[in-house]
Amino acid sequence: LRMERHQGMAKNTSMRWRLPLVCLLWELAMIVLFGAFVRFGAEADAHWEEEKRQMNLTSDMENDFYFRYPSFQDVHVMIFVGFGFLMTFLKRYGFGAVGFNFLLAAFGIQWALLMQGWFHSFKDGKILIGVENLINADFCVGSVCIAFGAILGKTSPIQLLVMTLFQVTLFSVNEYILLNLLHVKDAGGSMTIHTFGAYFGLTVTWILYRPNLEQSKDKQGSVYHSDLFSMIGTLYLWMYWPSFNSAISDHGDAQHRSAINTYCSLAACVLTTMAFSSMLQKKGKLDMVHIQNATLAGGVAVGTSAEMMLTPYGSLIVGSVSGIVSTLGYVYFTPFLESRLHIQDTCGIHNLHAMPGLIGGIVGAITAAAATEDVYGKEGFIKAFDFTGEYETRTAGVQGGFQAAGIVVSLLMAFAGGALVGGILKLPIWGDAAAENCFEDDVYWEVPEDEESDVYRMHSPSKAASP
Amino acid sequence: LRMERHQGMAKNTSMRWRLPLVCLLWELAMIVLFGAFVRFGAEADAHWEEEKRQMNLTSDMENDFYFRYPSFQDVHVMIFVGFGFLMTFLKRYGFGAVGFNFLLAAFGIQWALLMQGWFHSFKDGKILIGVENLINADFCVGSVCIAFGAILGKTSPIQLLVMTLFQVTLFSVNEYILLNLLHVKDAGGSMTIHTFGAYFGLTVTWILYRPNLEQSKDKQGSVYHSDLFSMIGTLYLWMYWPSFNSAISDHGDAQHRSAINTYCSLAACVLTTMAFSSMLQKKGKLDMVHIQNATLAGGVAVGTSAEMMLTPYGSLIVGSVSGIVSTLGYVYFTPFLESRLHIQDTCGIHNLHAMPGLIGGIVGAITAAAATEDVYGKEGFIKAFDFTGEYETRTAGVQGGFQAAGIVVSLLMAFAGGALVGGILKLPIWGDAAAENCFEDDVYWEVPEDEESDVYRMHSPSKAASP
Amino acid sequence: LRMERHQGMAKNTSMRWRLPLVCLLWELAMIVLFGAFVRFGAEADAHWEEEKRQMNLTSDMENDFYFRYPSFQDVHVMIFVGFGFLMTFLKRYGFGAVGFNFLLAAFGIQWALLMQGWFHSFKDGKILIGVENLINADFCVGSVCIAFGAILGKTSPIQLLVMTLFQVTLFSVNEYILLNLLHVKDAGGSMTIHTFGAYFGLTVTWILYRPNLEQSKDKQGSVYHSDLFSMIGTLYLWMYWPSFNSAISDHGDAQHRSAINTYCSLAACVLTTMAFSSMLQKKGKLDMVHIQNATLAGGVAVGTSAEMMLTPYGSLIVGSVSGIVSTLGYVYFTPFLESRLHIQDTCGIHNLHAMPGLIGGIVGAITAAAATEDVYGKEGFIKAFDFTGEYETRTAGVQGGFQAAGIVVSLLMAFAGGALVGGILKLPIWGDAAAENCFEDDVYWEVPEDEESDVYRMHSPSKAASP
Repeated sequence: LRMERHQGMAKNTSMRWRLPLVCLLWELAMIVLFGAFVRFGAEADAHWEEEKRQMNLTSDMENDFYFRYPSFQDVHVMIFVGFGFLMTFLKRYGFGAVGFNFLLAAFGIQWALLMQGWFHSFKDGKILIGVENLINADFCVGSVCIAFGAILGKTSPIQLLVMTLFQVTLFSVNEYILLNLLHVKDAGGSMTIHTFGAYFGLTVTWILYRPNLEQSKDKQGSVYHSDLFSMIGTLYLWMYWPSFNSAISDHGDAQHRSAINTYCSLAACVLTTMAFSSMLQKKGKLDMVHIQNATLAGGVAVGTSAEMMLTPYGSLIVGSVSGIVSTLGYVYFTPFLESRLHIQDTCGIHNLHAMPGLIGGIVGAITAAAATEDVYGKEGFIKAFDFTGEYETRTAGVQGGFQAAGIVVSLLMAFAGGALVGGILKLPIWGDAAAENCFEDDVYWEVPEDEESDVYRMHSPSKAASP
Repeated sequence: LRMERHQGMAKNTSMRWRLPLVCLLWELAMIVLFGAFVRFGAEADAHWEEEKRQMNLTSDMENDFYFRYPSFQDVHVMIFVGFGFLMTFLKRYGFGAVGFNFLLAAFGIQWALLMQGWFHSFKDGKILIGVENLINADFCVGSVCIAFGAILGKTSPIQLLVMTLFQVTLFSVNEYILLNLLHVKDAGGSMTIHTFGAYFGLTVTWILYRPNLEQSKDKQGSVYHSDLFSMIGTLYLWMYWPSFNSAISDHGDAQHRSAINTYCSLAACVLTTMAFSSMLQKKGKLDMVHIQNATLAGGVAVGTSAEMMLTPYGSLIVGSVSGIVSTLGYVYFTPFLESRLHIQDTCGIHNLHAMPGLIGGIVGAITAAAATEDVYGKEGFIKAFDFTGEYETRTAGVQGGFQAAGIVVSLLMAFAGGALVGGILKLPIWGDAAAENCFEDDVYWEVPEDEESDVYRMHSPSKAASP
Repeated sequence: LRMERHQGMAKNTSMRWRLPLVCLLWELAMIVLFGAFVRFGAEADAHWEEEKRQMNLTSDMENDFYFRYPSFQDVHVMIFVGFGFLMTFLKRYGFGAVGFNFLLAAFGIQWALLMQGWFHSFKDGKILIGVENLINADFCVGSVCIAFGAILGKTSPIQLLVMTLFQVTLFSVNEYILLNLLHVKDAGGSMTIHTFGAYFGLTVTWILYRPNLEQSKDKQGSVYHSDLFSMIGTLYLWMYWPSFNSAISDHGDAQHRSAINTYCSLAACVLTTMAFSSMLQKKGKLDMVHIQNATLAGGVAVGTSAEMMLTPYGSLIVGSVSGIVSTLGYVYFTPFLESRLHIQDTCGIHNLHAMPGLIGGIVGAITAAAATEDVYGKEGFIKAFDFTGEYETRTAGVQGGFQAAGIVVSLLMAFAGGALVGGILKLPIWGDAAAENCFEDDVYWEVPEDEESDVYRMHSPSKAASP
């Protein structure tokens, strides 16, 4: 073991100059670009009193802040605590999971504010931002956190920053194509966030294939308390997912409906996950990996349709199916992907995000295609799908077709983008660790010399003496 | 130890077919029943634009979603992270605490949406749901989480699901009797949630009495880090309790007042708990069990009265008293219950929920009886107690009497229901573990082969060599 | 080790009568004072219906509860989970970190409601409270949590309560001078909370200097999992800081703007912290102490200016600088403070709160001085700085001067108050531990006899046999 590590260290993993250089230069670039482009939107600007008068608003309550800020904070928790802690399940990679997730997300939201801003909030040469931009930036970064799950433990922080730079860019392009060119609805991001993010990450990890990864097999498991830390992530993702899927829906019924559909789908998903987790194990014991991950598939799978009239029982069906698919994926598909396709997927994002994301896109297409004025009401129908302006004459069926096209576009962007970025990350200049040092915080972090076991033994002096 | 375990395994605890069968069939039933009955309420339906016009609402802000969703999310966190992590204090039962709580709550909220829906939101053959229904479903499940506390570590997941099925049903009946027939106020659920849930659970555990439980005595304690995990649960319950007690109060002053009263009560409760925890121990050291639990009694004890004009100093008094009662309960009452009454109460729910729940019911009755038009204002008085329609002539004194009757009804329902359900759970078909395997995740979970201590010793090669 | 502890016990650390006495008497005092003074404000009182009519409000939504309650809950989480868990990094002091923080904050918010109430919400002999008072009470206590960070592990719970009593009092006086006499803006509390709290705590720990503290050097470090617990605190502080800085800003654009500025500042701060953490270590490895703390400096440093038109790029600059300053502080300044100035700062609050607080005050002064009607709009300018009544003629430049004066006043109050309180805490009657027992939960807590390592080894019988 000792020898292997030294051998690993031979691969230069020192971040001393590379990481600071990237962080500082990129932050400087952010400052310059923000200075050139980013300003407060009307609802966050000190001129709001005038705006209010112009818009004939009688109350500060009409400020979008009050419609969306609580959901924004829930989404924020999902990105930083949810994804961060979900990935702490590895016994020796908790610092990397939480810390690198923190780093890439903090950079990503800045870059996303710019990229998405240029596409969606650009006016008279300036990007005008408000709470909805913050949510969208968090969403965009969510897709990077997903991709991070596939390469967790195998990449240097610089590689993660490089991936973030490119993935945020490609995400924004893909999002623009879907939302603006195809006029697709995807409030909870089944396609833009989950399908794109997951297949992007899977392509990257496929390109970064490490044939000798079994050298760090002993570190790929969990320990008792790391599994509990991971459950913190799981539960926050699970509880706040209704906020995620409803955060940028239209004010009023759409936000309300999204939250209810997501709540129902997630509840059903827990039951089918538990059922299949127990059923697929010889002794019928539950597997923490499934509980930590597959229980969340229900949130992914209603991402597109939650704001539509999916109905509570429709949500239960979608949630139930996605829990089953996801759990089966962990048991049968992940090993297959690794052994046959050489796709090493540390967190199993194929089961939690890729397949449920596809389900979500398909369910969204079907739900849109099946929409009628009878179910939505005349006004509601137009409002739900934004059938105004140049889209005034689009029918539900056609919308369903475009929704389906959105899935295909997202997949293509993910594969192409992932291949490009994977190629870049393969360059031998980013300081990634050797196979035998993967999944090990010691490479990039000062790790405390843990004498935990000894500390705990203070009451039994015979043991305390041993170190 | 090894032999005992094998002996225990002789009791068939395999969940392989039983748990999947129950989960899948029940989820199927949920889908069918939701399909038959559950639809979106007016504020979540796509017809909302028409509804708005009809109701003469000028802003989407008037949608109940914006009045209650932030509180809903706080309550949601209390149920899943709060109760889930509170129960992780046991050294080897963290997976069961968080995981089974997750399972029963996910099933329970679906069943509660139906049961409560039939009683309270039934219109033209359909249950119309909105955010208030989600909150009430979470509330209902809260009473199951409480009962779970009494039997934590001693039951199989199937038993927990069976208990949930019955308890949610009985909860809804009891709630209907109190709120609709007796016209009782109980926004924070001192009676419906805490008194009912706790005495229900205590009756169940009394019926499931295990005479040989001392065989697993070594696993009934905590370890250092399990106590810290538990504090996560405690703090989230404590911090979000103002949201819990105000979540379904009337819009405006009632929600505002409930939050303030609860905040005050909880703050006072911490001080008296710390005082008595220190005072009752020979060396004056604080006991984590008290801090984790008794500090929350203040939230329970103002559950009924928080939305009334209890006043901040009234809240301080109630909180102070309940902290004292609860801490005394842990020190003197729990051992007595176990040794004399054969009530084995793993988490001490008698101290955290039962006694404070009774206090809450009584304080509510007194506060209602003492209400005057002078204190509430003419309109406020009518609004606070819904003295309209057939209750137009009810006086404060009479209301106090009905409130008191609500306590008695809740107790009777709890005892009868608990006895019934306890009897069912005693059947030898549910796969519960033998006494020596209680409080042990290994029975129902794949537990990682923890080499934590070795992992941590990587810097001292002499030790790393030992395994 | 054993001997040292016994020797330490010779110093009487028993809390048995002292702690209960203080807790119970002070809680009694709270009840009496609340009874004499505290009542519900108009928006939480049952007379609200009449108030609404009088104020010509058409919707319950106009109740301040709905503007501020979500932010309040976020702030509440920051105080109890954020500060509480941030301080759990010490290997043997997790109970004290979370538990004492819980105790002092629960007392502090009650006393703060009174103190701040007398200064700001006093009307006809009564303190009228609403959700804004709860937020302010939490804010006030935040400054005590900060000061606690400097003396963490070295003081008894009684000392912490005594400090809280005095610090809350002095905080309220200082806040009154700044906000009311100097008419200074400080919504996020860079001056009132951070600068005051940090220098107060540093002065206290300077007075309580322990020359033999290296006797407990072995307990001053972290272990792997304690660092992860600490990251829970870090992330909740980081994520909710936008709520903190916007919680008591004016309705509408000001709250909106504060959240955006803080979000930007914090994101930038993470990158510069990571950069300098890596750069300042020989092997380029990241240090958890920096990630846990310096990443938060960006929130402190925009505390005063976040509600002003700081602009997003301005926020990035402030965040970037504060991350650098804070990380440099941990590496160079903390050791210097301890060795040369005899200031033992357990959590490094000088780097996280004191210096960034000063930066925040200065940035606030500059931003105020630079404000123009052009940037803010005529109405917006007046509203942003409350230039009404006797301040109608104050100019931006003069405001900047008063802001700067606010920094000086806060510093003076902190030094004088800290010296006074430090002197009181030095009295040998409060039960603090000997130097060799510092940073050790065992002194004030029942600590479980941890056999964790053995528990985890259940699968390797050869080991399980050893205890």
